[in-house]
Amino acid sequence: MKEPIKARLLKATEASLRETGASGLKARQIATEADCAVGSIYKSFSNLEAAADLVIATVFERLRATLTAVDHTPNAPRDHAIALSAAYLEFARHEGKLWLAIFELPAQADTPEGLIRQDALAHVFAEAHKAVATIVPEDDAADVTQMIWASLHGLSHLEATGTLAGGDPSVTDALARRVVESILEKESPQKETDDNR
Amino acid sequence: MKEPIKARLLKATEASLRETGASGLKARQIATEADCAVGSIYKSFSNLEAAADLVIATVFERLRATLTAVDHTPNAPRDHAIALSAAYLEFARHEGKLWLAIFELPAQADTPEGLIRQDALAHVFAEAHKAVATIVPEDDAADVTQMIWASLHGLSHLEATGTLAGGDPSVTDALARRVVESILEKESPQKETDDNR
Repeated sequence: MKEPIKARLLKATEASLRETGASGLKARQIATEADCAVGSIYKSFSNLEAAADLVIATVFERLRATLTAVDHTPNAPRDHAIALSAAYLEFARHEGKLWLAIFELPAQADTPEGLIRQDALAHVFAEAHKAVATIVPEDDAADVTQMIWASLHGLSHLEATGTLAGGDPSVTDALARRVVESILEKESPQKETDDNR
Repeated sequence: MKEPIKARLLKATEASLRETGASGLKARQIATEADCAVGSIYKSFSNLEAAADLVIATVFERLRATLTAVDHTPNAPRDHAIALSAAYLEFARHEGKLWLAIFELPAQADTPEGLIRQDALAHVFAEAHKAVATIVPEDDAADVTQMIWASLHGLSHLEATGTLAGGDPSVTDALARRVVESILEKESPQKETDDNR
């Protein structure tokens, strides 16, 4: 028995984004892959981009699960932050073109699917925020989380697009570690916060 | 009198990338805008992507000129680095979709145009490196430049794609300043390097 049309369309959309990135978001091709009519897309989702938003929401859910699964000991919050950073970079690498497509397909603010995607992203952010808040003062944790996230995204994106560092993952990883350590050190100098929680 | 075909094609390519980003790189449309046959593209450049590479090289040249024009006093290298960072973010914002297209259109390693683009990028990097090398030890300046560049790129890219911070430029600018200060502080603690050069 075939899967429901909506599930087939989501699978086809994910496969297409994974294969060719944002340019793989083509209605006719996705409908063909899902073995249904193009019109089914618009019966199943707000629009074609909304199908991508749901796929991206599942990527964010996987990222959150990945971050949640990172081991940590309560007394080593900095090591935990470094391990989360490494896991994020590895995740982005593993998702390949699907990860890059996220930044080429902005979430739609006015569809239910866009809101689901934004919500999934907020949950990832909350996971990172929780780790950062064990190191820096609570009222600064959101800003510091954004600083770290953006820095990691920049390194990841420049690696993936081959813009800097020749795309060598071990170079990116080493630079990422230094950036995260720098930000945490400045925002919360180590000796004053060893037993911070 | 009309401009030479190659110049018209470059103008049309730039206009198209600026208007619609990487998805604007379409041979037929660019040829129509340039008022020539599609075949002229392939007589003027190695391929269609090569025309984009030349346009991107001119973007990098403008960025370098922008960075070179940033005021600085020799005794305030950190202020200079902060001012360069702010100029970079403002430049990326101003170039809009053309800037984003750079990261969706990787340079081609095997065409003369791709090499021209890579060379223009190397010149921008050298300009940033020069400023960083007045603050951190010479043999570490390349790594620190990459760390700062990537962090700024991440903030800029997340702002442009509306992924974090709601796309508010003043928030990005403030976070950028903190990231750059953190990296420079960690790599070269202020009191030891006040009269560094």
